[in-house]
Amino acid sequence: MAPDMAGINPFDFSTYRLPLAPLVTSAVLPVERPSLRDNTALAERIAAAAQRQGGFKEVRLSLETARGLNMGFFQGNGALWVALSEEDGLCRVVEVRSMERAGPVYGLAVDLGSTTLVLALVDLEKAAIVQEVSLTNPQTEHGLDILTRIHFADKTAGHDKMVELLRDGIKEGTDRLCTAAKIRPHQILAAALAGNTTMTHFCLGLPTASLVREPYVPIVNRPRDLTAADLDLGLCPSAPLFILPNKGSYFGGDLMAGLVTADFNRSEEVCLLVDVGTNAEVVLGQRDWLIGAAGAAGPALEGGVAAMGMTAGPGAIDRVRIDRTTRAVSYTTLSGLPPRGICGSGLIDLLAEMYLSGIIDYRGRLTLSETDGRWTRTDEGAAFVVAPGEETATGEPILLSEVEIDILIRSKAAMYTILETVLLSVGMTFDQVARFYVAGTFGQYIDPRLAVAVGMLPDIPLSRYVALGNSSLTGAVLALLSAEARAGALSAWQRLTYLELNVNQDLMNRFSAARFIPHTYRERFPSVGTLIR
Amino acid sequence: MAPDMAGINPFDFSTYRLPLAPLVTSAVLPVERPSLRDNTALAERIAAAAQRQGGFKEVRLSLETARGLNMGFFQGNGALWVALSEEDGLCRVVEVRSMERAGPVYGLAVDLGSTTLVLALVDLEKAAIVQEVSLTNPQTEHGLDILTRIHFADKTAGHDKMVELLRDGIKEGTDRLCTAAKIRPHQILAAALAGNTTMTHFCLGLPTASLVREPYVPIVNRPRDLTAADLDLGLCPSAPLFILPNKGSYFGGDLMAGLVTADFNRSEEVCLLVDVGTNAEVVLGQRDWLIGAAGAAGPALEGGVAAMGMTAGPGAIDRVRIDRTTRAVSYTTLSGLPPRGICGSGLIDLLAEMYLSGIIDYRGRLTLSETDGRWTRTDEGAAFVVAPGEETATGEPILLSEVEIDILIRSKAAMYTILETVLLSVGMTFDQVARFYVAGTFGQYIDPRLAVAVGMLPDIPLSRYVALGNSSLTGAVLALLSAEARAGALSAWQRLTYLELNVNQDLMNRFSAARFIPHTYRERFPSVGTLIR
Repeated sequence: MAPDMAGINPFDFSTYRLPLAPLVTSAVLPVERPSLRDNTALAERIAAAAQRQGGFKEVRLSLETARGLNMGFFQGNGALWVALSEEDGLCRVVEVRSMERAGPVYGLAVDLGSTTLVLALVDLEKAAIVQEVSLTNPQTEHGLDILTRIHFADKTAGHDKMVELLRDGIKEGTDRLCTAAKIRPHQILAAALAGNTTMTHFCLGLPTASLVREPYVPIVNRPRDLTAADLDLGLCPSAPLFILPNKGSYFGGDLMAGLVTADFNRSEEVCLLVDVGTNAEVVLGQRDWLIGAAGAAGPALEGGVAAMGMTAGPGAIDRVRIDRTTRAVSYTTLSGLPPRGICGSGLIDLLAEMYLSGIIDYRGRLTLSETDGRWTRTDEGAAFVVAPGEETATGEPILLSEVEIDILIRSKAAMYTILETVLLSVGMTFDQVARFYVAGTFGQYIDPRLAVAVGMLPDIPLSRYVALGNSSLTGAVLALLSAEARAGALSAWQRLTYLELNVNQDLMNRFSAARFIPHTYRERFPSVGTLIR
Repeated sequence: MAPDMAGINPFDFSTYRLPLAPLVTSAVLPVERPSLRDNTALAERIAAAAQRQGGFKEVRLSLETARGLNMGFFQGNGALWVALSEEDGLCRVVEVRSMERAGPVYGLAVDLGSTTLVLALVDLEKAAIVQEVSLTNPQTEHGLDILTRIHFADKTAGHDKMVELLRDGIKEGTDRLCTAAKIRPHQILAAALAGNTTMTHFCLGLPTASLVREPYVPIVNRPRDLTAADLDLGLCPSAPLFILPNKGSYFGGDLMAGLVTADFNRSEEVCLLVDVGTNAEVVLGQRDWLIGAAGAAGPALEGGVAAMGMTAGPGAIDRVRIDRTTRAVSYTTLSGLPPRGICGSGLIDLLAEMYLSGIIDYRGRLTLSETDGRWTRTDEGAAFVVAPGEETATGEPILLSEVEIDILIRSKAAMYTILETVLLSVGMTFDQVARFYVAGTFGQYIDPRLAVAVGMLPDIPLSRYVALGNSSLTGAVLALLSAEARAGALSAWQRLTYLELNVNQDLMNRFSAARFIPHTYRERFPSVGTLIR
């Protein structure tokens, strides 16, 4: 839970208990030198040697790989260094080098975040992250939210521009990784990409309009047979790409990456995964079945609704504590800078602490008297002063109005309702959930104790909550490293049943009951009572 | 044997007795409209419908095809027009159209001749050539012979230039075909290419240097998994390409196309195929075995050595007759124009008629007296006046010197020696050859009776000689139309054994014996005696 996401992930492959079987591996092949007696072409010669040595059903070289061949490769001691990629018994030769140019097999893992791109350079044979970098998704210059970008893409040349910006971002990130690692992008021989369905579509140059119009259908669920050249990424042209598949517009490859990271494929126990972004995505299941739902719950939780809300970044208030007796407010900010706003986890903290210290009641109404120093009036009515102007970066106070509190409560209620509905659909209760994974930035910073206190997350033992961190990136790294992870992502995609959330009276009743802190039925949140004052 | 090669080939698919199974076929698929209940992506939806209907093991869409999809396709009556390509149970969706845009499935067949490119637009479902066009290979501006071009390609940017010129030629030819057929190149959904190994390498952008340096090894024998986009041909990007494979630098895809056209794969009888170009390539065999050899025999026969030699084109003398009594010379020219030179078949005719009318003796020496009007002296010694200056296009007489006659005799002797050597290698004699196919322009124009008369081709019944015409193009057309033809090309490539012609004393003895007209052993050419005077 390092606050600086750009730092190196504390990635330890051994903790995942996955067999190492990278997307691309190297081999040294004995290859006989061409002669007048045996004039078999260079490509077929290398393929035959790989087939003999690896016992593959078939070995093929791409045209791009073949273009790099020449007789010079065969002047040496009769051995060649090759990078190979296998799928379903078919082996592809990704790269051929003379022995003196042998080197590590590098892979690129990319988290295609709509706000931030995170890239990791992975040594596929050492199963280690060599470098990691994050940068702002260049698409953000044309809109912070995805919908704006899809509308931009509808304009003439808008789609091409969006595709170009995203790929430029990946290339920029790759260049930074390579500079740091002192290699050239051409030495990267494999890549795995995970992102939400829209980002993945942009990255592949696929149309995006259908994603946001009923019935919200992607163009492709499982992109395959792709190499770096197809996306013009500047890596080794024949480098295979593994794209984490999507299950509809709202269930992206990032979520599949999360399921891989949380190892749903091998879990006998029933687990829950929640990814809170623009939407809240929820998956319940274990190795034999998966059911998922998605719904709008995110904007407020992501910091996108409150006037002072902001995405997690330097100067964002991420932790809030309010003294139960004095009601003194203390907080921390990301990077320790003077506060500029409040990020999603800060908002949940704030809401919980305000409730637990009696500043708001169970309906979210301020109980402070108008003479209290923390009380103020805004255009939106009464508001709470989180940080007075003299403490903030801008000199303006950071406030939370009753209207914003209501939006926050609606968001947390939506989240809880989605969770409840998914569990009801399979006739289960929360106490039957063995592990509750919270993915993404939100999960990285949130304090589950306080998310429970406001009734956003269910009141299960805290030890069952697991912050997955950037599981989009981790899942991509695992896909680079392990055939089992790749198979797991595909299997999750195939097994996942999408539960359409029908807005019927039952759901509305559940939502209404959740619009109190922690809930209309307080008995569902027995631990909250112990926290108050 | 139409003299104008640019005309439409009299192609009749039914004569080949091959089952029609084109490289790409069309189908109408019932595809359910996406809905909130079933939000499967468009690509997967189409793939599933094709799989259901066609019973394929697996169906995939390329990224390029997916990029063309949108919800508009699903507004209609629930049916889509698709173009499919299948290989080894894996079906690829080449193109998707709404029903109102359904149309013929067009394929492009290309003969990658080093001098002339010939392209045919084929209706794959009607098994008919719709349009045919030929144009000069634009590479010829940098050298008429292949060796010059490969050396040019060794220079900086020279290879790229060669590749670009060749592809530009294909695109120019395609544009002409499309203009004539009133379609756009994007409507061409498949292509098959046949050419010698060098032309195929240039077309694929593969290095060519190794082809002409010992041990004369190609970069790739069997290019595969290619689409039109890989070669930037401007066709439908996902159009599959079938490239006729090569068996070494001297056994190109054009020869495999010849073997397919001549149906060696199903022949129980032993056949011979000869392709005379810059090299003479010979294949002997039947459905169970194939043995081939190549050797330098061509230049003279292609018109490249005699001072008045020229490739078959307008104004080339292609037929010569000399009255046995009066020794009056008559000839025809291609396109009926005043003569500019003599093409390969004309040279063979001339040599044979000169011998049969006693103008040269069995050693190729002129027997005319110096006072004869047909006798003249050149820098190269005595020469025969084929056409006096007043008859020719340039006003200069067309001559054939004794030196040139000697080169011609050496060429025909080389040809005969290669044939004899290949037969000897399997312990066979010429009378065991059921059919003798002569491919290419040479075979198209040559009179086998006279080729036998000079001892270039063996003295077997004339009915066994078959002119294959442009079998490089025909083989490519057949590959477009028939899975059996495609399998046949691959099978021929795999079965063909290359016989390295060792220049030993035995071979030199055979060559020396063949350096007379028709041969040192006249008894091998019994029919020739009946032709003389």
